[in-house]
Amino acid sequence: MKLAKRTEKTSHSGLDEIFAASKPGMISFAGGYPDSKLFPRVEIEQAFSHTFQSAPATLLQYNSSKGYLPLREKLATRMRNDGINTTTESVMLTQGAQQGIDLAARLLLNRGDGMVVEAPTYLGALAAFDVYEPNYYEVHMEADGMNIDELQKVLMKHEVKMIYTVPDFQNPTGTVMSLEKRKALVQLANIYDVVILEDGPYRNLRYTGEPLPPIKHFDTEGRVIFLGSFSKILAPSLRLGWLTASPELFDGLVALKGGSDVETSNLMMSSVDGYLAENDLDAHIKEVKATYQHRKDLMVSALKKHLPSEVHFNNPEGGFFLWLTMPQGFDSTRFLQESLIPNSNVSFVPSANLVPSKQLKNAARLNFTNVNDQDIETGVEMLGQQLKLALQSKPIRKTATR
Amino acid sequence: MKLAKRTEKTSHSGLDEIFAASKPGMISFAGGYPDSKLFPRVEIEQAFSHTFQSAPATLLQYNSSKGYLPLREKLATRMRNDGINTTTESVMLTQGAQQGIDLAARLLLNRGDGMVVEAPTYLGALAAFDVYEPNYYEVHMEADGMNIDELQKVLMKHEVKMIYTVPDFQNPTGTVMSLEKRKALVQLANIYDVVILEDGPYRNLRYTGEPLPPIKHFDTEGRVIFLGSFSKILAPSLRLGWLTASPELFDGLVALKGGSDVETSNLMMSSVDGYLAENDLDAHIKEVKATYQHRKDLMVSALKKHLPSEVHFNNPEGGFFLWLTMPQGFDSTRFLQESLIPNSNVSFVPSANLVPSKQLKNAARLNFTNVNDQDIETGVEMLGQQLKLALQSKPIRKTATR
Repeated sequence: MKLAKRTEKTSHSGLDEIFAASKPGMISFAGGYPDSKLFPRVEIEQAFSHTFQSAPATLLQYNSSKGYLPLREKLATRMRNDGINTTTESVMLTQGAQQGIDLAARLLLNRGDGMVVEAPTYLGALAAFDVYEPNYYEVHMEADGMNIDELQKVLMKHEVKMIYTVPDFQNPTGTVMSLEKRKALVQLANIYDVVILEDGPYRNLRYTGEPLPPIKHFDTEGRVIFLGSFSKILAPSLRLGWLTASPELFDGLVALKGGSDVETSNLMMSSVDGYLAENDLDAHIKEVKATYQHRKDLMVSALKKHLPSEVHFNNPEGGFFLWLTMPQGFDSTRFLQESLIPNSNVSFVPSANLVPSKQLKNAARLNFTNVNDQDIETGVEMLGQQLKLALQSKPIRKTATR
Repeated sequence: MKLAKRTEKTSHSGLDEIFAASKPGMISFAGGYPDSKLFPRVEIEQAFSHTFQSAPATLLQYNSSKGYLPLREKLATRMRNDGINTTTESVMLTQGAQQGIDLAARLLLNRGDGMVVEAPTYLGALAAFDVYEPNYYEVHMEADGMNIDELQKVLMKHEVKMIYTVPDFQNPTGTVMSLEKRKALVQLANIYDVVILEDGPYRNLRYTGEPLPPIKHFDTEGRVIFLGSFSKILAPSLRLGWLTASPELFDGLVALKGGSDVETSNLMMSSVDGYLAENDLDAHIKEVKATYQHRKDLMVSALKKHLPSEVHFNNPEGGFFLWLTMPQGFDSTRFLQESLIPNSNVSFVPSANLVPSKQLKNAARLNFTNVNDQDIETGVEMLGQQLKLALQSKPIRKTATR
């Protein structure tokens, strides 16, 4: 039985093999999970209970590919309050933002089409894009978002259909794209007729500093698809995300959703709509942010204390991750497999997995949202020890620079 | 903004335009819905409530692309009791069986690959397959399932990757594939190295006669992917289906599910698992079947009474649909749009939409599960009147034979 060509890539993120040696009790900075202790479980339970008691008989029936209308209204309002010019008619519910990524790629990408991703970028987005076999162009991340000069050069030279970006507290670097770059990105997209896929799952999780408008705010030609998600601000197992797009793109996305899984659960959408009606989501987000900010600050302090001076890291203003950069020539995958996991039972996500070319080897993503205070202290201390040892050891550096 | 080529097909099922003229109060035989009055809403509500009360803190967290383990165990047991040789390790939960169709196509189909569908077939499956741009071969349906001689000729002449079939109470014809054809189908698949996608959403809804083993029962080489669904036997808005496949295919399906929507809702899977633990699903199915059988019998009686003798219909032993066949040259799409909807406010699904080539024009699908007794009587009587008028009228027949 011959599989489709697309499966050659998508079956192997490579992470399973790397973590095969994990032992119980690992201190994992590798995850991307919110902390389950922060989920408003009682309120969500109540919302389900109220929904079962008050919703019409059609609660458990098929509904619509676009989703439950009152929830679409609430999301349209939330997005408008956030600077996005949208209407209920342009909002669709998805199975998490992940499905939005898949549907956007499905709408736009023929095999071999050009597509720009940030380097590094979100691993799961690559898993979705790989299915449509695009031709990737990597644009490097800087402290204020992707390198716009590099992007312009790519767009001048190559035909590109879509640019994928996580402008707020990027996965994996934690970076925020600057206001100037947001505007420049839209201008370039207009000039070169490109669609921007703006993925915003961390957007509401700003711990310090002032929020910037979404890229979609600057969209004058209906070429930005914005993706939102309840996974990081409410709970992942609701599997609820949403998207908004101009009519030119929206109708196709809805049709593709129908063929993909018919629709999202009406029971789930109705109950989350009930949660939003009965509770103050923003007050809940505020509580969540306090905990995550504390952990982020703790991790930054520990990194300052324990990391060798050749290793750099950032102090993100929000989100789930921060980014370690080791000296050129360092191989973070080898370090993880040969030193960090076996010697310390500590883990992170190595950078090579986060670019299509696998050619970014000296960095790593650290998650701070789902690790307790003690593990942050202990894990970072052990990470520092292992890094110091590895940076003195020739093999890890030598092999990496071959 | 240029969309992907695949969207040229998938955006247009053609049904929206046909039903644009619908008026309120339509008697619809066009749907494919179960009756929402039969959903065990109280029991499902209890299952959610018990799950919220007893499940661990990880209930609302990310879980796994394969799905909630206890539910996978129960489904493996159900399938084994139904003659499928499978294990828990080979079962994955999906967003309805629709996602199973999408994932199987995603796993196997390169653009231009050969794929066999029954003619007619399930409209939503075509919407899923279209995305991967296969080269369709249509094999005609007979009273005992697809024409195996025709299938063999196709397989001899063309390279085919996958055969899609709904062997039990087929959507749209209501047909059951015979035992002989099930065995022959697997033999041909073995000879020509083809994967069979067996879609079984109606399998548990047999009203009369003896069940036949699933096609997967005869699978000796791990080339049958079996799809199941809770949508028709429990409730659609749970959005829960499942699949089982041999390890050779299963691992790829799981990886593709990850890129598609990460995973299915752990809350949903845990609650449905709770429902199955606390209730007798088969007893519930028995109740549902009694109602649907009654409606099917009523529709068959009404068709016998009201339809002109040139129109043929079957009396299926289960499922959701029966199949009308008008004389050659009759155009059921035109009849629906120009006579049945405007004159009677009654609807069905015309056959042209149910084959990739659109070249099956003289038939129609009737649903009986979500229509009440009175509407069945009235709707079929009006359908008979309109058919009699149309069969006397030249334009509808003439244009159709051009």
